[in-house]
Amino acid sequence: MPYHPLDHHSAARYVKAAGLFPKASALNVTEIGDGNINMVFRLQDKHNGHSVILKHAFPYVRCVGKSWPLTLDRIRIEADALEIQHRYVPGLVPRILHRNNEMALVVMEDLGRMEVMRKGMNKLRKYGRFAEHISTFMANVLFFTSDLFLAAREKKALSGRFDNPLCQITEDLIFTEPYFDCARNKVNPALRPYCERVFWRKSALRLEAAKLKEKFLTQGQCLIHGDLHTGSILANATETKVFDSEFAFVGPAAFDPGLLVGNFFINFLSLNGKEFSRAEKRAYQRYVLESVRKIYQLFERKFRRNWDQHCKEPAFVVPGFQDYYLRQMFEDTLGFAATEMIRRTHGLAHNSDVDEIEDLTRRGDVQIAILETAEEIMLRRKEFRRMDEVVALVEQRGFSAEGQRPRKNRN
Amino acid sequence: MPYHPLDHHSAARYVKAAGLFPKASALNVTEIGDGNINMVFRLQDKHNGHSVILKHAFPYVRCVGKSWPLTLDRIRIEADALEIQHRYVPGLVPRILHRNNEMALVVMEDLGRMEVMRKGMNKLRKYGRFAEHISTFMANVLFFTSDLFLAAREKKALSGRFDNPLCQITEDLIFTEPYFDCARNKVNPALRPYCERVFWRKSALRLEAAKLKEKFLTQGQCLIHGDLHTGSILANATETKVFDSEFAFVGPAAFDPGLLVGNFFINFLSLNGKEFSRAEKRAYQRYVLESVRKIYQLFERKFRRNWDQHCKEPAFVVPGFQDYYLRQMFEDTLGFAATEMIRRTHGLAHNSDVDEIEDLTRRGDVQIAILETAEEIMLRRKEFRRMDEVVALVEQRGFSAEGQRPRKNRN
Repeated sequence: MPYHPLDHHSAARYVKAAGLFPKASALNVTEIGDGNINMVFRLQDKHNGHSVILKHAFPYVRCVGKSWPLTLDRIRIEADALEIQHRYVPGLVPRILHRNNEMALVVMEDLGRMEVMRKGMNKLRKYGRFAEHISTFMANVLFFTSDLFLAAREKKALSGRFDNPLCQITEDLIFTEPYFDCARNKVNPALRPYCERVFWRKSALRLEAAKLKEKFLTQGQCLIHGDLHTGSILANATETKVFDSEFAFVGPAAFDPGLLVGNFFINFLSLNGKEFSRAEKRAYQRYVLESVRKIYQLFERKFRRNWDQHCKEPAFVVPGFQDYYLRQMFEDTLGFAATEMIRRTHGLAHNSDVDEIEDLTRRGDVQIAILETAEEIMLRRKEFRRMDEVVALVEQRGFSAEGQRPRKNRN
Repeated sequence: MPYHPLDHHSAARYVKAAGLFPKASALNVTEIGDGNINMVFRLQDKHNGHSVILKHAFPYVRCVGKSWPLTLDRIRIEADALEIQHRYVPGLVPRILHRNNEMALVVMEDLGRMEVMRKGMNKLRKYGRFAEHISTFMANVLFFTSDLFLAAREKKALSGRFDNPLCQITEDLIFTEPYFDCARNKVNPALRPYCERVFWRKSALRLEAAKLKEKFLTQGQCLIHGDLHTGSILANATETKVFDSEFAFVGPAAFDPGLLVGNFFINFLSLNGKEFSRAEKRAYQRYVLESVRKIYQLFERKFRRNWDQHCKEPAFVVPGFQDYYLRQMFEDTLGFAATEMIRRTHGLAHNSDVDEIEDLTRRGDVQIAILETAEEIMLRRKEFRRMDEVVALVEQRGFSAEGQRPRKNRN
């Protein structure tokens, strides 16, 4: 069937023709995408309540229109990534029920019982199993798709299969545009003076961002999710599902833990600008930082265990190499975390964690705290020995800034 | 025309059918390959002397036979690499006259007027234009095929086009096998005791080799030649031609200068075991080291000039990034040079520079000097500020060792 864009009606016809629902069933169709790039339909049988999710691409960025064309191949890439992730972390990604590359669509189980983690975190929801789950997700996918496990030929074949045009979005939005007064940036007016007088003049920071951009462009270590923030994760008290793998490609291992940690730090600092009681905020902030500590500790422990049990390459079982590799990954994780904190503050795509602070001055104070914390993490990333030390820095910055107007001069 | 292996007769028929010679011409056909991997025919018109070179692959490694299969696609890769190199350094690679991917062959201009540089260097031949030429070759090809010049999408397309199965040969022969008593190593009996008692126990060195192997596997910076030693270069007093690009792929920029520098250092140290007069040796050794100094200095200068003139990426024109990039490239060049010196000493593929020393004890002394020098370069590569300092180290090691039996204890 040649490609054609689906609407509510044709999506319903499609899933019935594909045998996912009986021909005679009556379906409720709702579009539930966040509206940025793709169409996401929920199709539900009116009688028995059975439902599925259909993700479908237009040949352009949905929220912009035909002026920003985007390959249909992104759905094929997302489905391929889901299949590989499913192999190494079954149960931690949505199950695929049906896929069609030509139609640029994939049908997945409906996980409506779960919540997008970012939304939950903004309501101070805690996820008791999350550190355990996400550390397994990262330790397994990043290890088993790397040269530490795969033969070099297999790893290169994976690179070719995930030649992902969406990388350019990351290259521009994360590594380039936030470091100057780019037209696509979305800058809070209350933050703009700080950006103009201080942030956009930080040449040491731009240099570090350039080093990380070069890594992102050239370091093909393993299949990364490529966009592992809390908005790409569904969670509840017992389950975790990582979705939206359309940015997946063979890139630097540290990028996934980096984005995740960066988003946790943003959430932590955003609380200082919010309306919850002081006790509620403190308790949740401690939970957020404890999560980062636990996630990274478990991630490293599981990654090392995979290495000890499954690495057969003589060159990579040499004493000291595992420590070296994890040290590099730690430094790069901090670097990528910092770039994520920066770009979510005044780049094109923000986090609701901060943007739901309605008072622009208060929001600006939080944003400045995020930028200053990110800068310190970035510039000192070779000094920190363990994630505990980074967490202690963030904690100290967050708790000392709480409720205060920021200092006048901070350049 | 479906693939079939060519012999002397069918090669002659082929070039006539392809219009490279008149149908009626009488051709002399000689096979001039070094015999390792491919067939290389010289086809010459008996009457007017006009000649061409036809390089042709069998679906296996020629010198081993069908038990070591090797993709025919390697000739397509070599011809593609030649075309790209020709774009950026016209005149520094052989001209392609005809190519046929399906038949796994490429016909090139005959450069019989020139000599394989390694052979010339073993006869103390000097090449006055070489530093100028090879620095241009490296500075242009490595810069213009990198993310510093190409759009990320173009660079990635290049990676896909040069998905080269021959990389495995490098991975095994350079980075893994020389560091333990591997069956494929070819160890001079006079060197074996040193390898067993000393070299194969050097865990610090194995660790550095592992780091470089990981770079080779994951760092896709630009289109590298992949085997840039003096046996892959034709030279005479006025011309330089780089050939045998079948190992080309998108890898670490430092690999090409690293192999080249390593081969020059091997040549320098090999002279201590040879029969030339002391004055002849000294003079040539000074020329060799002066060449390294000049090559690397010109290479960096031209690479920087390309960057200043042609890099349009905002993230990469940030002050300090160019210095950082060249610093990394310098350290990695030294690392790759050291791995090359080591693997050519007792790995599967040696250099005639050393192996033409017939007395095995003398050869062993030279080999130990090479291994010790390589080790010092490898372990101290972050200390050296400039290539001058490395050259001074090699000079001091070479001149102090000259004519002496090596010290008893060197672990």
